[in-house]
Amino acid sequence: MGGLRLEHCVPCSRNTPPMNPDEIDAMLAEVRAWEKVEEDGILRLKKQFTFKNFTQALAFTNKIGALAENEGHHPAILTEWGKVTIYWWTHIIHGLHQNDFIMAAKTDELVDQREE
Amino acid sequence: MGGLRLEHCVPCSRNTPPMNPDEIDAMLAEVRAWEKVEEDGILRLKKQFTFKNFTQALAFTNKIGALAENEGHHPAILTEWGKVTIYWWTHIIHGLHQNDFIMAAKTDELVDQREE
Repeated sequence: MGGLRLEHCVPCSRNTPPMNPDEIDAMLAEVRAWEKVEEDGILRLKKQFTFKNFTQALAFTNKIGALAENEGHHPAILTEWGKVTIYWWTHIIHGLHQNDFIMAAKTDELVDQREE
Repeated sequence: MGGLRLEHCVPCSRNTPPMNPDEIDAMLAEVRAWEKVEEDGILRLKKQFTFKNFTQALAFTNKIGALAENEGHHPAILTEWGKVTIYWWTHIIHGLHQNDFIMAAKTDELVDQREE
């Protein structure tokens, strides 16, 4: 789990193949409680985080935003009162890539930093 | 349209009735291009706003967050690269209330301020 957190996103092109189901299942074991969901025919990684109120949820959204800008890879972030749901996938390949698992691991790292 | 922007949310209880379909349709005419959508059996107001990049989208999310805190009424905000989708509804009554239309109008007001 520690290893993924230390990696960085690599550039993808339209010709980069999305991960196949076996690769995805193997990588899911490397991240903590992320699930794969299919929406609009595209596989994504999804995880919900809970907070005490709206302000704390929005603060987390901003931390994820800064992480996304740093890595040049952007999620969908659903911010609500007391919860934030993050979706990672790779737009250009309409599917999942190693980059998404790296970002999932880095997302968990931000949560751990909050809790320490 | 100007009127709603000047109003403020009023407290709701579990006994407050949600708006009926006729009331909702009448109020939809008072806001700009908001649509009603049903998700998980609950009617919500939905509108998507577009931006030049992720940073501008996240900045708008934060403006909506400040508005929500000021009024004590909180939306679901989906932040993505170049777009933000806002959903307003009233959690405690599992439906739509005049407050949601007030917040929709105030959301548009924030956009107008950006464009001025």
